Amino acid sequence: MTTQDAIEFEHIFNPRAVALIGASTDNGYVHSLTNSKLWDKLYLVNPRYDELAGKECYDSILDIPTEIDFVVIAVPATHVPKILTECIEKGVKAAHVFTAGFSETGIPERKKLENEIRDVAKGKIRLIGPNCMGIYCSKSGLSFTWDASFEEGPVGVVTQSGTFGVEFLNIGKIRNLKFSKVVSYGNAVDLDCPDFLEYLAEDPDTKIIALYMEGIKNGRRLKSALAHAAAKKPVLALKGGVTEHGSRAASSHTGSLAGSPEIWSSIFTQTGVAQVEDFDELLNASLALSYAPFPAGKGTSIITNSGGFSVLETDACVKAGLEVPQFTQETLAQLRKLVPVAGTSISNPLDAWPIFYNLSGSEGNLGDVIKILARDRNIHSIIVHMDEINYLRRVLGPVFEGHLKEVIDLMLIGCLYARDEIGKPVMLCISMEIFTEDEEDRRYHLMVKKAFEDQRFPVFPTLRDTIKALFNLYRLGLRFSKK
Amino acid sequence: MTTQDAIEFEHIFNPRAVALIGASTDNGYVHSLTNSKLWDKLYLVNPRYDELAGKECYDSILDIPTEIDFVVIAVPATHVPKILTECIEKGVKAAHVFTAGFSETGIPERKKLENEIRDVAKGKIRLIGPNCMGIYCSKSGLSFTWDASFEEGPVGVVTQSGTFGVEFLNIGKIRNLKFSKVVSYGNAVDLDCPDFLEYLAEDPDTKIIALYMEGIKNGRRLKSALAHAAAKKPVLALKGGVTEHGSRAASSHTGSLAGSPEIWSSIFTQTGVAQVEDFDELLNASLALSYAPFPAGKGTSIITNSGGFSVLETDACVKAGLEVPQFTQETLAQLRKLVPVAGTSISNPLDAWPIFYNLSGSEGNLGDVIKILARDRNIHSIIVHMDEINYLRRVLGPVFEGHLKEVIDLMLIGCLYARDEIGKPVMLCISMEIFTEDEEDRRYHLMVKKAFEDQRFPVFPTLRDTIKALFNLYRLGLRFSKK
Repeated sequence: MTTQDAIEFEHIFNPRAVALIGASTDNGYVHSLTNSKLWDKLYLVNPRYDELAGKECYDSILDIPTEIDFVVIAVPATHVPKILTECIEKGVKAAHVFTAGFSETGIPERKKLENEIRDVAKGKIRLIGPNCMGIYCSKSGLSFTWDASFEEGPVGVVTQSGTFGVEFLNIGKIRNLKFSKVVSYGNAVDLDCPDFLEYLAEDPDTKIIALYMEGIKNGRRLKSALAHAAAKKPVLALKGGVTEHGSRAASSHTGSLAGSPEIWSSIFTQTGVAQVEDFDELLNASLALSYAPFPAGKGTSIITNSGGFSVLETDACVKAGLEVPQFTQETLAQLRKLVPVAGTSISNPLDAWPIFYNLSGSEGNLGDVIKILARDRNIHSIIVHMDEINYLRRVLGPVFEGHLKEVIDLMLIGCLYARDEIGKPVMLCISMEIFTEDEEDRRYHLMVKKAFEDQRFPVFPTLRDTIKALFNLYRLGLRFSKK
Repeated sequence: MTTQDAIEFEHIFNPRAVALIGASTDNGYVHSLTNSKLWDKLYLVNPRYDELAGKECYDSILDIPTEIDFVVIAVPATHVPKILTECIEKGVKAAHVFTAGFSETGIPERKKLENEIRDVAKGKIRLIGPNCMGIYCSKSGLSFTWDASFEEGPVGVVTQSGTFGVEFLNIGKIRNLKFSKVVSYGNAVDLDCPDFLEYLAEDPDTKIIALYMEGIKNGRRLKSALAHAAAKKPVLALKGGVTEHGSRAASSHTGSLAGSPEIWSSIFTQTGVAQVEDFDELLNASLALSYAPFPAGKGTSIITNSGGFSVLETDACVKAGLEVPQFTQETLAQLRKLVPVAGTSISNPLDAWPIFYNLSGSEGNLGDVIKILARDRNIHSIIVHMDEINYLRRVLGPVFEGHLKEVIDLMLIGCLYARDEIGKPVMLCISMEIFTEDEEDRRYHLMVKKAFEDQRFPVFPTLRDTIKALFNLYRLGLRFSKK
């Protein structure tokens, strides 16, 4: 990336002033930015209003009495060429065209309109879009969702789909996932996936890159950008439209040509990018990479308060590419002293439910159990699976809440030891039924979640999510762990 | 199944009187049955109490002044042989041994104890267990969870794992899944998986069988029972311990030998059983089979209020074994009249977000759109994906709740037409972030869920769940649909 490129991207992500053209209460951008740190640097343009959200509204960008680095254009598609011409006249460096209704419609005159805006912009202003959500930057306060968090974090997202940008921000806020930048680039008439990849590869605020794309205009350039980025930091990629029918859907979604699944898998393998299967895996792997050290191998241990899932957990780990090895004889001997025998399995997975009920054994407690696993040389990572919190609650009755807090404290002692003293990743899985209407039950699950998130552990809602995330951590560790 | 066998199973599922031996507030069985219709037929045994939950507590089963068909034994493992002897003396027909601490521990003397109870019982009393949750029957009121629903339904569950029995009942209650019987059979010293399969195959209250198992003693007998059941009704099976490490875990969970994954896949294929990959798939396929007609082919259409996922949805359908064909020209022409063009895809998947905002187009509405899809000859089933309810809420502001109710009504008009007039299955997917703390948002999602469940549509929380369930419906339809 040249210095000139870097300056262009500064105009986009950290603009000195931004104009929103076609500002209205309908399109959401005013809302997105009202509570943002960017609000004071924002200028609104719409001849229909004198004022919006307490801010003066200009008739044209040409009326704004200050220099504007970046604009967001949200006017009807046919007006876009004229607006772009005015932006060029104003000296704006880059424009995000939010408006949809171009090549993705499959209609020839709309494709022509897309070509027209490309021609107007060429060499005079950089374009993002059209048909996309544009830019989120936690540092500058640019955003495209109602109530984004602006807490800074390590994940940089590049997505062809606007929905995924929105979902990353919305779900991220709930799941403790924090971002440096999120870019939704849509039809990509100018700036495209490789441009943003190259930028994020160099961006010191971005430690992990998550990519979603449906198609690409220049395969060679993309491949080189992927290889460049993946050499510098972990890159996760989700390719939409890998099946024939999916490819047709991609074409009508963002006007992309999709290519065969084999070609894409081979591109990702060759460039060192971890290809994932779905949006959940992309998000959960980003979460694991945000908070967990890389495991030194495939050996996974699982500790649970419910044996029922331990067999399937093990199958799922092995199918994902991990291993669930037996503990060493030393570990087994130590565990046998701590965990009562009936209905449990002194084995890996460790179905240790009694020590979730009886917290202070004479020989040690839940924290000690986790410490023993952490020291086992066959074990490189630990999954703690909290299942049946509701069952524990029913069994313990009124003393449950205090008891749960003690369980959490003991688990944290063990997990912090495993991660911070021994250097092994710990993944927490909290199983809860999504549609439950038992608000008490939800509150207890969320209490466990928060306690672990406060200590910077990644927390996952399903075993599948946990195991897939751990596998991605493992395989990217092969590339990036310091050994 | 002989008449004698049928009578034995009547004693178990619909007993005239039941005794709970080792009744206490600790083991949960008293709670499970307190609110059940079985309560009046229940006798409690425990020399430590005179009374429990307002009911007389007997010192021994021999003191109970009435005939007892079935007992639940929840005493320490070493006491089980003596208790069984007393049950035989009393003339009890069948016993469920809840107690754990037998062969599953891997300890030789515990294995010996398990053999002892087998020998005591042989020919004199039928046994379920040990190390299991036993029997739930919606009709008689037998149960093993705190607050099971006793609404009768079509699903019969046979599970080696007690947890899965509990989870089926707990999650089923939340997900509108209703059961005839649930059997958790544990170590299976006497009655085993094939016995229960044969019983459920004949049981008129059971229309669908969901099976979880880890291993089996007599493969030939199991295969014959599977084939027998799968010839009569849809059978879904989940085999735990299909990997080498998973097999070791299974051995320590229920003392089972697991066999190779290839052998199991081949057994399921040969017997016409639909093998599933995980617990979620088992549950969601049971839900689809409970409420949806079989599709006449693979052609799936997806209608959504968010285009972002449509490409991945399509890929996921195709990977699962379904197809997402293009609509007919006639359908496309009709849709073009109803759905505005900008930012949407008049294609399958149908990204029809504007008609979720503007409900009364001059040419028709959301209900009409679904009706058009339902009539398309390329389409055999419909997935309605409600995504971004929260986004709709933010855009619409204070009028949202009334608007959502109108959306639901229009969707229901279309979906009821598709299912009841045209005979095509409709699956509803409601995407919601599991850990959200936005209670308003949850309320709206649950409102949509309830409206569709009230009209007997299956509702799923994720696209993956929806698509996997639909594929299972499709493949079992090849066997069972009336054509």
